[in-house]
Amino acid sequence: MCDICVMNAVKDRMLSRRGFFKAAAASGVAVAATGASAPIALAAGVGKVEDMTHTLSADFPTFFGEPGYASEQVFNFGEHGFNLQRLTVNEHTGTHIDAPLHFSADGASVDEIPVSDLVAPLCVIDIAARAAEDADTLLTPDDLKAWMSANGDIPDGACVALYSGWAAKADSDAYRGFDGQAQHYPGFHPEAAMMLIEETGARSIASDTLSLDHGISTDFATHYAWLPTGRFGIENIAGLDRVPAAGATIVIGAPKHAGGTGGPARIFAMI
Amino acid sequence: MCDICVMNAVKDRMLSRRGFFKAAAASGVAVAATGASAPIALAAGVGKVEDMTHTLSADFPTFFGEPGYASEQVFNFGEHGFNLQRLTVNEHTGTHIDAPLHFSADGASVDEIPVSDLVAPLCVIDIAARAAEDADTLLTPDDLKAWMSANGDIPDGACVALYSGWAAKADSDAYRGFDGQAQHYPGFHPEAAMMLIEETGARSIASDTLSLDHGISTDFATHYAWLPTGRFGIENIAGLDRVPAAGATIVIGAPKHAGGTGGPARIFAMI
Repeated sequence: MCDICVMNAVKDRMLSRRGFFKAAAASGVAVAATGASAPIALAAGVGKVEDMTHTLSADFPTFFGEPGYASEQVFNFGEHGFNLQRLTVNEHTGTHIDAPLHFSADGASVDEIPVSDLVAPLCVIDIAARAAEDADTLLTPDDLKAWMSANGDIPDGACVALYSGWAAKADSDAYRGFDGQAQHYPGFHPEAAMMLIEETGARSIASDTLSLDHGISTDFATHYAWLPTGRFGIENIAGLDRVPAAGATIVIGAPKHAGGTGGPARIFAMI
Repeated sequence: MCDICVMNAVKDRMLSRRGFFKAAAASGVAVAATGASAPIALAAGVGKVEDMTHTLSADFPTFFGEPGYASEQVFNFGEHGFNLQRLTVNEHTGTHIDAPLHFSADGASVDEIPVSDLVAPLCVIDIAARAAEDADTLLTPDDLKAWMSANGDIPDGACVALYSGWAAKADSDAYRGFDGQAQHYPGFHPEAAMMLIEETGARSIASDTLSLDHGISTDFATHYAWLPTGRFGIENIAGLDRVPAAGATIVIGAPKHAGGTGGPARIFAMI
């Protein structure tokens, strides 16, 4: 879908689903003031850190199919005695944050996400087997229920991550799965987002694909359900194959530029 | 000093100090291959996370005195249904990393810094009382010795941070302290950098000012002593007033763009 088509689809959805947004917002936790410190409860016996971040370059796949990152050498060691680059970055490129402001008129910007939400219990929902058969598959409420049956309740403040196995495709066209008409990769079903909002204290969702919604989405229903409630998202997360389904702590190095709608982040898991 | 003057000074220094660089490099630890995971030893009883990151905006003071960051709204919620910005960022702006490549011809770029160096014991050297009297003061080997007398050896892998109290000045001209001729703020003495290289396993140094060198430096001796050895730096770190001298763990959310000489980072301390 072209940029204009995406925008029109999004706009149509806004007009037709006002009630839905309102309900989602009403059920959401109010955006807390950003504190510079927060209590944390790290998993006992932390002994290893895993990098959950793709390397960013002009080649990294993007939602719109155009480079989301460029660098320009401003000073170079041979001539000036030091190296320095100027970067141009689309906020929603690489392993990055979707702040509430990305899909709301006046939600929290990326610098306003509370620190207490950036160090969180990590829950990994594995739908990789299904995704290998069907690139358009969605993480559903049933997947959340199956995870809870095996691992217990989703902890307050959790980051709930969709593991589809897509991170391994990041250096190929299969990551975006564009067939000339639409993109094809897994995402969260909006009903899964609503279940997390209504029944858990989860504060973030993470996808190892280009979007919180699956690639063929034209209405961005999961973005619109989740972000306006003051919760945030992570897209293009890496390394979910190296962390357990439950028990790890995710440390989300979100960027902190004033008024940002998101941006590339450095993300670790402590196990 | 103007940009050109800085560059000429740096170049002169390069030509005159080749032997010094060589010695520093020879004594350095070889740059390890970046692993996606690393063992960590978090401080026992971790229960709080502190944000060590300044909010980035076009107003944040910069070394060169010109804005290091700009944002441009590409999509807006009212018109397009979502908000998205394109950012232009000088890599060395705000709370940011100096990768070895910043002051070397072919040192490690920011994406190549090993994960094992990004989660580290944090040692805070407090020279705030002296800095309040003398903005040009330097953290010296004697300051390191005093810290070790009080707190024991500097742990392997440590991040050694200079606390001058400068973070509190970040919204005023006093942060850069430019008097029309030179900048005035504290930094690391190059002999302190050499002591850390030769006598400890420290992997990073952090300054709560605009530079690893003090503001009046014209030869960037600390940058040239430290970075070419494969170690890295952090500039404009915040929050050092909220962490203990010893015992905290710093988590350095360095950016991960390929070939970067550094870049804005999100940094936490776990206490």
